[in-house]
Order: sequence, then structure tokens, then C-alpha cells
Amino acid sequence: MSLCALEWRYGSEEMREILRVDNIIRKMIQVEVALARGLEEAGIAPRGLAGELEKALDAISSREVYEYEKKLGHEVGALVWLLGKMSGRYGGFVHYGATSNDIIDTAWALILREALGVVEEKLKKLVSILIDRIRREGGQVLIGRTHGQHALPVTWGFKLANYVYELARSYERLVDAEKRVVKLKLSGAVGTMAAWGDKAEIIVSTVSETLGLEPHVITTQVAPRDGFAELVCSLSILGGVLERMALEVRELSRPEIGEVNEGMVPAIGSSAMPHKVNPIRSEKICGLARVLRGYCMTMLENIALWHERDLSNSSCERLTIPHALMVVDEMLETSIKVWSKLKINPENMRRNLERTRHVYLSELIVLKLIEKGVPRDEAYSRVRGLALKTVEEDKDFLEVLENDSYITSKIPVDEIRALRGIEYTGLADRLVDRAVGYARRVMGL
Amino acid sequence: MSLCALEWRYGSEEMREILRVDNIIRKMIQVEVALARGLEEAGIAPRGLAGELEKALDAISSREVYEYEKKLGHEVGALVWLLGKMSGRYGGFVHYGATSNDIIDTAWALILREALGVVEEKLKKLVSILIDRIRREGGQVLIGRTHGQHALPVTWGFKLANYVYELARSYERLVDAEKRVVKLKLSGAVGTMAAWGDKAEIIVSTVSETLGLEPHVITTQVAPRDGFAELVCSLSILGGVLERMALEVRELSRPEIGEVNEGMVPAIGSSAMPHKVNPIRSEKICGLARVLRGYCMTMLENIALWHERDLSNSSCERLTIPHALMVVDEMLETSIKVWSKLKINPENMRRNLERTRHVYLSELIVLKLIEKGVPRDEAYSRVRGLALKTVEEDKDFLEVLENDSYITSKIPVDEIRALRGIEYTGLADRLVDRAVGYARRVMGL
Amino acid sequence: MSLCALEWRYGSEEMREILRVDNIIRKMIQVEVALARGLEEAGIAPRGLAGELEKALDAISSREVYEYEKKLGHEVGALVWLLGKMSGRYGGFVHYGATSNDIIDTAWALILREALGVVEEKLKKLVSILIDRIRREGGQVLIGRTHGQHALPVTWGFKLANYVYELARSYERLVDAEKRVVKLKLSGAVGTMAAWGDKAEIIVSTVSETLGLEPHVITTQVAPRDGFAELVCSLSILGGVLERMALEVRELSRPEIGEVNEGMVPAIGSSAMPHKVNPIRSEKICGLARVLRGYCMTMLENIALWHERDLSNSSCERLTIPHALMVVDEMLETSIKVWSKLKINPENMRRNLERTRHVYLSELIVLKLIEKGVPRDEAYSRVRGLALKTVEEDKDFLEVLENDSYITSKIPVDEIRALRGIEYTGLADRLVDRAVGYARRVMGL
Amino acid sequence: MSLCALEWRYGSEEMREILRVDNIIRKMIQVEVALARGLEEAGIAPRGLAGELEKALDAISSREVYEYEKKLGHEVGALVWLLGKMSGRYGGFVHYGATSNDIIDTAWALILREALGVVEEKLKKLVSILIDRIRREGGQVLIGRTHGQHALPVTWGFKLANYVYELARSYERLVDAEKRVVKLKLSGAVGTMAAWGDKAEIIVSTVSETLGLEPHVITTQVAPRDGFAELVCSLSILGGVLERMALEVRELSRPEIGEVNEGMVPAIGSSAMPHKVNPIRSEKICGLARVLRGYCMTMLENIALWHERDLSNSSCERLTIPHALMVVDEMLETSIKVWSKLKINPENMRRNLERTRHVYLSELIVLKLIEKGVPRDEAYSRVRGLALKTVEEDKDFLEVLENDSYITSKIPVDEIRALRGIEYTGLADRLVDRAVGYARRVMGL
Repeated sequence: MSLCALEWRYGSEEMREILRVDNIIRKMIQVEVALARGLEEAGIAPRGLAGELEKALDAISSREVYEYEKKLGHEVGALVWLLGKMSGRYGGFVHYGATSNDIIDTAWALILREALGVVEEKLKKLVSILIDRIRREGGQVLIGRTHGQHALPVTWGFKLANYVYELARSYERLVDAEKRVVKLKLSGAVGTMAAWGDKAEIIVSTVSETLGLEPHVITTQVAPRDGFAELVCSLSILGGVLERMALEVRELSRPEIGEVNEGMVPAIGSSAMPHKVNPIRSEKICGLARVLRGYCMTMLENIALWHERDLSNSSCERLTIPHALMVVDEMLETSIKVWSKLKINPENMRRNLERTRHVYLSELIVLKLIEKGVPRDEAYSRVRGLALKTVEEDKDFLEVLENDSYITSKIPVDEIRALRGIEYTGLADRLVDRAVGYARRVMGL
Repeated sequence: MSLCALEWRYGSEEMREILRVDNIIRKMIQVEVALARGLEEAGIAPRGLAGELEKALDAISSREVYEYEKKLGHEVGALVWLLGKMSGRYGGFVHYGATSNDIIDTAWALILREALGVVEEKLKKLVSILIDRIRREGGQVLIGRTHGQHALPVTWGFKLANYVYELARSYERLVDAEKRVVKLKLSGAVGTMAAWGDKAEIIVSTVSETLGLEPHVITTQVAPRDGFAELVCSLSILGGVLERMALEVRELSRPEIGEVNEGMVPAIGSSAMPHKVNPIRSEKICGLARVLRGYCMTMLENIALWHERDLSNSSCERLTIPHALMVVDEMLETSIKVWSKLKINPENMRRNLERTRHVYLSELIVLKLIEKGVPRDEAYSRVRGLALKTVEEDKDFLEVLENDSYITSKIPVDEIRALRGIEYTGLADRLVDRAVGYARRVMGL
Repeated sequence: MSLCALEWRYGSEEMREILRVDNIIRKMIQVEVALARGLEEAGIAPRGLAGELEKALDAISSREVYEYEKKLGHEVGALVWLLGKMSGRYGGFVHYGATSNDIIDTAWALILREALGVVEEKLKKLVSILIDRIRREGGQVLIGRTHGQHALPVTWGFKLANYVYELARSYERLVDAEKRVVKLKLSGAVGTMAAWGDKAEIIVSTVSETLGLEPHVITTQVAPRDGFAELVCSLSILGGVLERMALEVRELSRPEIGEVNEGMVPAIGSSAMPHKVNPIRSEKICGLARVLRGYCMTMLENIALWHERDLSNSSCERLTIPHALMVVDEMLETSIKVWSKLKINPENMRRNLERTRHVYLSELIVLKLIEKGVPRDEAYSRVRGLALKTVEEDKDFLEVLENDSYITSKIPVDEIRALRGIEYTGLADRLVDRAVGYARRVMGL
Repeated sequence: MSLCALEWRYGSEEMREILRVDNIIRKMIQVEVALARGLEEAGIAPRGLAGELEKALDAISSREVYEYEKKLGHEVGALVWLLGKMSGRYGGFVHYGATSNDIIDTAWALILREALGVVEEKLKKLVSILIDRIRREGGQVLIGRTHGQHALPVTWGFKLANYVYELARSYERLVDAEKRVVKLKLSGAVGTMAAWGDKAEIIVSTVSETLGLEPHVITTQVAPRDGFAELVCSLSILGGVLERMALEVRELSRPEIGEVNEGMVPAIGSSAMPHKVNPIRSEKICGLARVLRGYCMTMLENIALWHERDLSNSSCERLTIPHALMVVDEMLETSIKVWSKLKINPENMRRNLERTRHVYLSELIVLKLIEKGVPRDEAYSRVRGLALKTVEEDKDFLEVLENDSYITSKIPVDEIRALRGIEYTGLADRLVDRAVGYARRVMGL
């Protein structure tokens, strides 16, 4: 049991496998293999080098590289040494003309492509769960809340559809970020490709094709760090949306509200209080959103590297890239679990909706008065007076209206009575369809 | 003279005018006018309302709104009251069915469109200046530096072309962010458009067309806050790139390096030391990049609003949106000034390049040895030994090589001598063209 | 009406006056006056210089300095020029041997001493309001909540006393920070006091005494920036405590809970919905806490200045120091208002407490069973089963217990019945006294 | 090889052992043992419980707890179950009346005391190394730099003494933070100690004495989170100081400056360029400072927990507390290594000092002119003119002065000539002594 909870407690095995140093080393070897192919193609390295190197994929462990690194003082240097040894007579041509960050940054691109694939799949799954819920229970009416106070009614589906839209936007944003960061970096020690001379272009195009990565237009020794910053910011924005959803669960599962609960009851709810059932998964999501936000700062500071690069980004990225992806993975996994198992309580939704006893119709009454020719400020302050009194005295707003001579002098009592059955959820259904349609289109669902 | 230096010291008048509360109020009125047009179109408001409201654009000052707000306790409420008063008999229909954030968020969209227009123009100007410099002085060779240490030669144009690429990426990213944040928010108190019923769609489409803003697919009471967070993160990433460029100036203008200077000598350089000429503009850019980064945190925290919204984003955005845009504006203005006036010192570039006396050819020698069949690790450690000795003893690397019997047993002396004139800047020129072409395409230059 | 809401909307006039550039310039002049006194004392400047300079305190406006700065390219340089002019024949000795940051950093120290004085006074006022409330209404019992779920009962006073403790800790922390940042910086261009030679010590001690500031032990050209970072972090931690209190108000004033409300009803609650009464002050506090947090990042980045200093901290501090202090001032002002006017609703506190119908006694029942010899896990799971069933079936927990044969076989029914009147608030009263005592001692109340 | 580089690459074994989940669980058991002692003392638990529990210290592994947690859904619950099982007939009284965070927060206090002990020891070691260097090589004169430009001369010892002062301030700050966070939290489910009734005080005082931790004055379910935020901010400020020192190394080891180097040459300096010797340790320190800063944001957000607590801090702290401590540990370890091995190059220091050929005496000349009655602005602009010309024409400043008739009309040529040998390092030596004395006093060296 290690010190970092991302090793065992948080995140999926799938994501952990992608981000373990073993896979990072493996990806580096893959890049060296692709480079070898390029060198063969360019007539620099003898045919056969790439084939030899491919064997290393399973033969070299990260532990071995690390042990060598301690001797040589250089991680990629150590790997290249090991690869050179394995490749016998071709060995000299391993890494020919490349610089370490040709390997590291391109390996990051491969890792990120895998990891973002997982993130995107989970995002799709989460959105599908929400869409499915919309279909099953979306029509349920509940009170909409602004400032934590009752506003107007919405449907449960409308609430979910807003999340669907926001998650789809996050998906879009990740795709936008991906196109700027999942790129081939292959340009040598300062980015000029000097070591390969005129053969540079064939090498680059071979590697690009082999790995399925479009090359950066130009680079220094390293790929520009704006892309990494953007990635972590985008993950963190997604984290904010997941937090918003988790906050909804936490708030709506307060006993006084009771509109939803996480639907999972563990054997122990509190070591002190056996009666506790806490929304601990949603609370965890909110906590992890804070962790992600902090990581943005680190990555934003990494952009301004010196000249053709300095090394200050290296230690940061070693920690922050895997950490950020594991944290977002845990948030997505947990969100999927929560939003799969979540139980809504239609009875409490109804009860809360009725608690303020039609006072949410106040807006509508103002508009009716305006239509009847009452000046806006008069209409507003009259209705506000009645509404606040209604709440204070815990009456029914429509009854109050029916008994107010001013109101009934403007709006016929029948018209007021007719409001009794109104849902007042506006175009919620149409908007839900629009949001779902948008997500399907953007996410290819 | 106020307390906030953004009022007078930093940022352009042009940007300040966009972000002053007067313009924000003006934009809010514009949204109310557009809404009035929608209400007319929908047959809700009498024809003529929009026309009346338009007069308010010049008649209502932000001060007046603020005075009223203090009485009424609500900013948009105060504006609507004032507008209502001005519109006489039509007044009741001002703001009909809308909620405050229909006005605020749409006004932000209009403000942001203007402000981002300015940012984008300045970005284009900065890139043009760089491209122009590339044409004029791009061929100048200087030493590339990694870790602050001499690496391989690059051209001055190559250095600039990397900035061109990174700035173009920032431009792209802003355009991507813009499409998610410059949007119409018009959907009423909780987003369901309940007050307008079936007339909602005609209202929304009229306003959308009038203002030239595409509506959000769905919203709560407010537009989703992910877009605002993305915007400030994107500005902050741009800030990081400008910081990187400023750092280059600061470093290269150290007296021991002396390759560039800001080209501006004020009457006073230091209140103590009359001999000082400091790169103060570039230092300011670096400082302001830190300010921008901090703003990201605030905006990222704003995403997770409660239910159909809470107000916690409001105070943050009032401060952070104008501040972020003013700060980035000052950074761009200053960058434009610095990169227009910057003086390069080709003599010092040459002197520094020659300082390490061809040792930067060490990579090339290793590759030559490998081609001659020397195992990579042997080649590397031999050359490293010679290179470190060369530096320590302050010799010329090519001379050392010519006098090393091992080396000359592998590489003919002539071949070594032939390296004496080599620039070793690889495909710098081709890459520069590629970067410039990329920026032209992306930025429409 | 300007662009920065800190100029008019947020913060007190008192704090704004301290932070306006006029006062900053005034403080700089004060430092120059004190320095003049030191120079006189050391026999460098002629007697009379300080007296002449003192007149400048009212004669030189910040606008004038700024206009001069634009010509000369240096802010303190401009001030010194103006002061020199005013001082006639003594003028040459103004600023003799000093560097700009002797003036700027010492002026900051004076400004911060004033500003922190205000912060501390407001903190004391807030704590006094809480203590007063404790005396008046502290005995009121309400349900304690963990995870948003009902836990055990507490008293209202206990809740407040936790805030009292946390605010007192923030006070302590500010005092700790103050001692490291409110210091004299007077050591010349690189910190060696070279210009004054052996007269340095008499100059420093005179200025130190005149301004009432202890000098830094050693400095570079500037005071170490760790102190400024610590200050903003400490303010931001205070912001977190105020946010926690504001969050309590927002949550407890949800209509389903209704235990408190801000006690202020504006004429307009929402531009759309006349029935709304929103906890807008507390929401503002939560928003501003986010703004403060962002400022920490900026200030933390300022620590690592180059060599004997670089200028990158300057632009940051110009913005962030006044902004941070104004934001915290607004938060304190608003907190004072909210916690003065806040209304508690004892009836709803009682109603909510009774909602879960004694289930909060579950802990106590487990402990009783353990005392009767029941193994802990058996006790816990039995009681958990009954407690969850009680909640699900909306029964009274004590009744359920009385009717459970297992429970009554262990705990006599009488003992269970006796729990009916129990408050179960433990040592709340004693702890409240302790917290109040602590705050009085720490804050000198 | 795991995914988190803090498991193997960064940080000392010593710190890792403290922060591994094994030790955290061990510390939790220690708290349960101390609580058992308190319960015995209070006559609640039978004598012998604590003794039984003590055996668990070695018998229960974190893995076991985690496996149980997965079944029971609660970490401390799982531990208590295991402890209960081990304690046989006493088992029921394990954790009696406590809540999970009595255990967790107190365990954190114990962990933090250990970890901060290590941090403080390493800080002392680093300061001792600097003091030792001051003694050995502190007298060496070099040019002081502001804005990266040459300012006035300083001594190497003066530079180091500034770090000594800043590190001592960080030490002080950690001690201040420690007193607010290394505290006993023992107060039950909502902080009222309800379960223990009148026996609470004897329990708390026994545990306090056993663990050597002073109790919090009052708490909710958890210790106030301001203390944890302060701790990470304080570590991050220390990180900023270490970064500042590392930045000095990186800058001064540029080949054009060459005043220091890290003194360690690995077998491989770059995988591409065998001639490279990079200041990689100092670059790593700069990178890790960014990581630390990001963690502050997370911890600052944790302060505003709901009511008597919510769980959102839990996941954050699990990650961020160990990560922050490991990162700072790596930074300290590396700083110790760098500042032990660092080589200074007195020859280059001298060469650079002489590069600007006495122009750093410009301040002194101005002061001399003022003393001779020249108005300040005339003096300044005359000297500035000459100084800039001197630099531009690469002359010797004193020679220029000697040949300037205006200057020599004011200052006798002899007086100018006499400056040729001057060091102009002011009171550097005295200030160094003062800084060293300060550190010795504060840190008990």
C-alpha cells in the first residue's frame, strides 16, 4: 500500500494501466520503433532495425530503465542505451538524430490519445445514462431553484438535459484540445531537424503515418506546452460540470428536500452514527474537482519555457498529467455509478413543489396584469406584496389572488382559477429534445 | 486617480471603453431593445416599444442605474424600471417574460464579441510584426539554448516562427472558446421559457437575428459557466505564450548575452543607478501573466452553480471578466511595442555562437561515428569526453577532433575540416515558411 | 463609472481611501520625509530638508506624478524629481542613496499596516456580533448536519462558537503574517547600503523610529516577497472562513429548511419572479472568496525573483494587493451586515430537529448496548437496521426501539422512554464558553 | 513501477515511510489506543483495552483495512471493526463515543508533526550548508543584478545571506502554521462530545497527554480546515524560496555568465547532444514549485465545509497532503544536494564584474555631484548620459569621467582615480552576520 491513493483507491484499472510508467516506457519504445522505420525508409538505418526494436516492447521493463537512469543520469538516454544493446549490430542507429523529447512528447501524445479515448467513452456512457433517465422519468415535475430558493417549476428531464448539454460542450472542448496536443513531435535537439538534413521530411512522414499522428508545424526541442495546459484546463472544466451535477445530488438528498438519493446504502454510514446515509460518492466528486483545478495552475506555468526549452516542465508533467487523468477518471467512474443508481422520489418532488403553494405563479400574474394595461412597476410591487404575504402566512397564492379585490378587478376570477392545474414548465420538453439531439450529434451517440 | 491600475495605467482606451460599466449598461439596453423587437414580432408587445427603448441607449447612464439599484436592491430590476419609465404607455412590456440573466449574459456575449475582436486584431498585429521581422532579419544565425545552455544553432527567424506558431494556436483556441461563450441566452427565469409559451421561438429567433448571436441549445437561469471559464483559461494560455516571448527578451538582453534589447531608453532607468537600462516592458508582461493565471481559478470555481443557478458567479465575473480582458490587452499592447522596437545585435549573436567554439557539432560527430560503424554508446561517450574537455580547456572543438587519433581513425580529417563553415541550422528555413503559412491560414492574414 | 467594480460597488470608503493611488503616493512621500530626517541625522543632508518635504504631502497629487512618470519612464523617479523641485536648495538630497523600492516597499508596509488595522477591526466587530448572538439566542437547539444529512443536535450558539474560533484563528494568522510583512525596507540599490557607507545605520534607525517600522534583517533591492504571498494567502484563508459562514446562511435559508434568513427584503427580488427573496449577500461573499483564492496564485509566483530582484512582481502587486484588500473588506462588511440582521426561525429549527424523530439518538443506543455487553458490530448493525427502517417508514425511533424485543431485552423500556426529553447536545455550552474566551484573549475583545 | 512518481522517483524514503498509508493506519491505531486509555481513565472502558489495542499496531495492515472498507463502505469503520475483533471481550469499547474524524484528524496531526519535523531538519541542514559556504567563500565579490542587468557589486556571501534570511522566515512560518494544525481533534460526531457526557474532559485530557497534542478549543465533526490550507500555503511559500535559489543557479550557470555550476556531470547530458551539462536539479526544483502552488488552491477550497462538515475535503486531502509533503521533501533534498556540490567560479565572477567597466559606480558619482551642490536632476542626467555612452562605446567609466570636463570641474580627478580600487559592497559583511545570527536564533542552529 503506497502513499498515492491514485495507485489503488481512485481511478479505474483501465486508466491506471495506460498511465503506469510501464506503459509510458512502452510508448517511448513504440516511438523509437517508428523512428527506426523512418530511418530505414530514409536510407539512414539498415533495414531490420525497426524489427529488432519491436522485440524490446516486451523485453524492457520500466524498472530496468530507471536503474540505468540512476547510473547514466538521463531517462531517455538510459532507454536508448538498453535498446541499442538489444539491437546488436543495428544498435547504433537507434534514436539516430533524435532528441529525448521527440520520444517523450510523442509518447505523451500516444498516451493522451489512449487516455482521452477512455475519458470520451465514459463521457458518452454518462450522457447515455442521463438520456435514458430522461426517457424513463424525465417528465416528472419539480420545483426549479435559483439562489437555493424556489423559482419556477421545471421537469426532471429538463434538469438532466442541461447536464447533457454541458457534458456535450465538455466533450467538444476535449476534442478541440486533443487536436492541439495529440501531435507528433519529431524535430531533433532544437527543432531544426539538423541531424537528418534533407532526409528529415521522409523520416517525419513515415513516423507520422506509422503512429497516426499529425506532426507539429514547428517546435523547439519540445512540443509547445500550451497544448498540455489547455488539456488540463479542459479536464478541469469537465470536472466543474461533474461537480455541478454532484452538488445537485448532495443538495436534493438533504432530508428536508429528499428529492433524490444516491441509492446505495453501505453497511456503515458513519463510525459514530448508525442512522447516517450520506451522499459520499457525490461529495467525493466535489472534492476531486478541487484537486483538478489546482493542477491547472501548474500546467499554465509550464508554458513559458526558456529559449528552445528548459526542463522545468518535466517534473511537473510527470506528476500532473497522470494525476489529472486519474482524478478525472475517478470522477467519471463515480458519476456513472451515481447517475446509474440514483433514486428519485417523485412524492417529495411533488410535496416540495406544493410547499410554496402556487407562489411560483407570481411571474405569470405580473405578466397578465401588464397585458391588462397595469404599469409594470405597479404590477410587480402589488404581486410581490401578495406573494411575500402568502409565504409568510403560509397560504395558497391562488386563493390569496382570488380574494384580492385589486387583482380580481384586473384578472377575472375564472382566469385565476384556471391556473390551478397548470404545470408552468414552458417549453421544457422541446428544449430537452434539442439538448439530447445536440449531444447525439456532437458525441456521435 | 483611482485604486485600480486598470483604470488608467494598464490597457488601451479602446478596450477600457468596451469594458466600462457604461458600455455594459448600454449593451444591456441593446438586449432589451432586441427583446422588445421579438415581443413585437410575437404580437405580445405593441409595435413601437423597441423604437422607444432605442432612445434610452443614450439617455440612461450607468450612474443612474446604480443609484436606482441601491434603492431597489436589484441591478437589472433598476434598469428595467428606468426603461419602463422612459417608454411611457408601452413601458409595461419592457423585459416581458425575461429574467435578469437573459439580459446580463447576452450583454456579456456582446461585450465579449467586441473585446475578443480587439484581442484578435492585436494578436494579428503582433504576428504580422513577427512575420515582418522574419523577412527582414530572420536569417541571422544564433545559438539555440536548452536548459539555458548552448545547444545547436538556430536562426532568429526560426525562434520567431515558433512564436508565430504558438500565437496562431492561441488564436485558434480563442476562436474555439468564442463559439461556446458568445451566445444568446434568452430563456426566462429557469430556462424553460415558460412566460412566453408558444411564442418563445419567434421571440428567440428575432432576438438572435437582431443581435447576430446563436442561442444556447438549453440553459438554466443562466448560460452555462463552462464557457466563461474556458475563455479566461484560453486568455491565460495566450498570456503564457506572451510571457515566454517576454522571457526571451529579458534573458537575451542580459549584458553577458546582449543579443537583443528592448530598444527604448527612458530618461530614468533606476532612481538609484543612472547606468541602468532595464527590460521593464518584458518584465511587466511576465508579471501580468501571473495575474491572468490567478483569474482562471476563480472562473473555474464558478462552473458548479446550484440547481438552476445561484448568484455566486456574479460578483466574481463583475471583477474578473473585465480585469482579465484589460490585463491581456495590456500584455498585447506591450508585446506589440516590444516586438516592434526590439533591436537585435547580430554581432553578439555571432560572438556567443562562437563562444563554445563548434562544440555544438558534437551531435553531428556522434552520428558520423555511428555511420562509420562505431557503437552508439562508444561514439557518445568518446565525443562527450572530448566535448567536455574542449569546453573546460576553452579550445576549438574541431581542432580537438582533428588532433584526436581515435576520431581521425574513423572520420577523415578533411571531413572534419569541412565542418568549419557549416551553419547546422537544418531545415530552419523550411519550417519557418511552414509556420508562417500556418498562421496566415489560421488567422486570415 | 469605471470598469473596476472595486472603485464604487465593492468595499468601504475607508478602505478605498487607504488603497487609492493618492494615498500610496502620500505614503511614499512620508517615507521620503523620514529618509530626509535620517539623512539630516547622519549629517548628509542639510537640516531643513525633511521640513521642506513634509509640505509636499499635500502639494503633490498622484496625477502629477503619473504625468511626470510618462515623461521620465519611472514612477519613483518622477516623484523624486517633483520633490526635488519643491525642496529648492536642499532638493539634491531628496532620496539620497535610496533605491525606488526603499520607498515603494516601505510605503506598502505603511499601507498594509493601515489596511490590516481596518481588517482586524472589522474582524473584531464580526466576532463581537457573533458573541452577542450567542448570548441572546445561543441556547436554541437545532439539528447538526454532516454531509448535509442530519447528525446529532447542536445549539445555535455552538455553531456560532465554531465560527468565533475559526475567525480568531484567522486573526492570529494575520497578526503572524503582519509581523513578517509590515517592515521597513531601507537598504539601497542591491541591499548593501553601499551609498551611505558607515552612516547607513543611523539613517536606518532614524527612519525606523520615525515610521514605527522594524527593518528587515537583510534584503536584496526589495523586501522578500514571501511576506506578500503569506499576507494574501492569509486573507484568502479568512475568506474561506467567511465563505463557510455564508454557505451556512444560504443553506439554512432554503425554504425546505427555513432555519435562518438574511432578514433583508429588497423591493425587487428577481426581475422575473416577484415572489423571490434570495440570500444575495451571502452568495456574494461566496463568490468573492473565489476571487481571493485566485489572487494567491499570483502572489505565490512572485516570490522567485531573479538575483537581487526583477520587476515582474511590480505589475502584479499594483493590481493584486489593493484588489485583495478591497475584496476582503467587502466580504467583511457584508458579513457584518448579514450576521447583524440575520433572523433565526426557532420554530423551523425545532420542526427540522423533530423531522427525523429521534433517530439521532442511534449513536447513544449503540453505546448503551455496548455497555450492556453487546459486541460493537452487532450493536451497530442492529441499530442501523432499526434506524434506517425508522426513517424509511417515517416512524418515531424511540417507539421503534420500545417495540423491538431485542432492544428491550438489553435496555429496559424505562431507560428508552427517559430519552424522550433529552437534548443530547453534550458539552456544547462549555465549549462555547471556551471558544468565546479564546477569541477574547486572542483578539483583545 | 507505479503511476505516481512520488512512489519511487521523488522524495526521500524517510518521508515516504511517514506518508505511506501503512503509517497513516498505524497512526490511526495509535489514536484509538490513546482513546482507549482515556476511556479506561474515565471508567467507561474496562482496564486492559488500550493494552490489547496496542498489539494491533503491528498486526493490522493497511491492505486489510482497505479490503474491509470495500465491504463495509467506510474506512475508519473498517479499522474499528478489525480492532474490535482483535480486542476480544473489550472490543465493544473500541472507538466508544468517537467519530471517524476524531481518529483521522488526530492521525493527520501526528503524521504532520513527523513530516514537519523532517522538513524542518532539512531546512536547518540547508541553512547550515549556506552558512558554511558563507564562511568559506562568502567574501567573493560579484556583480549584483537587478532586472537581469548589472546593478552594484555584492558579495557571494551577501547573496547567500539573503537566502538564509528567507529560509529562516519560512521556518518561522511553518512553526506558526504547525501550532494551528498539529492539534488534537477529539469531540465526537458533531463536536459536542455528547456521547461522553461529563466524562469528556477526562477522556480528552488523557488522550491529549498521551499523544502530546493540545486539543482544539472547539470543533465541528472535523478540525477546522484553515489549518491545513495554511500548512500547504506555507510549504508553497517555502517552495517559492527554494525556486528563487534554484533560479539563481540556473541563471548563473549560463555559459555566458558561468559564475556557478551544479558541480555534477552525468554520463549523459542530452540524448542528442553529448556536449551538454545542464542544471537539471535546479530546473526540477523550479518545476516542483509550480506543483506545490497548484496544491494551495485545492486546500484553500476545502475550508468552506457545510454545517458541521461535509466530506468534500476527504478525497482532496488524501491526495494533496502526502503529495505536497513529498514534493517539498524532494525540493529540499535536491536543494541540499545542489547547494552542497555547487561550484563557484571566482574568475568568471571577476570577469563579469569588470565587464561593465566601473559603470556600476554611476550612483556614487551622482551622490558626489549632489554633495558638491549640483542639483539632483542635472547630476542624474549628466551621469546617465556618460554611463550609457560608456556602455555603448565599451569604455571604462572612470576613464570617461576623468576625461569629462564637466565632471572634473566638480569632482577632482584624484577623487575619481581613488575609486578604481573600491569594492562598493557597502555593509554587506555586517548584514551577512545579522542574517546568519537571525537564522541561528530562529532555527536554533
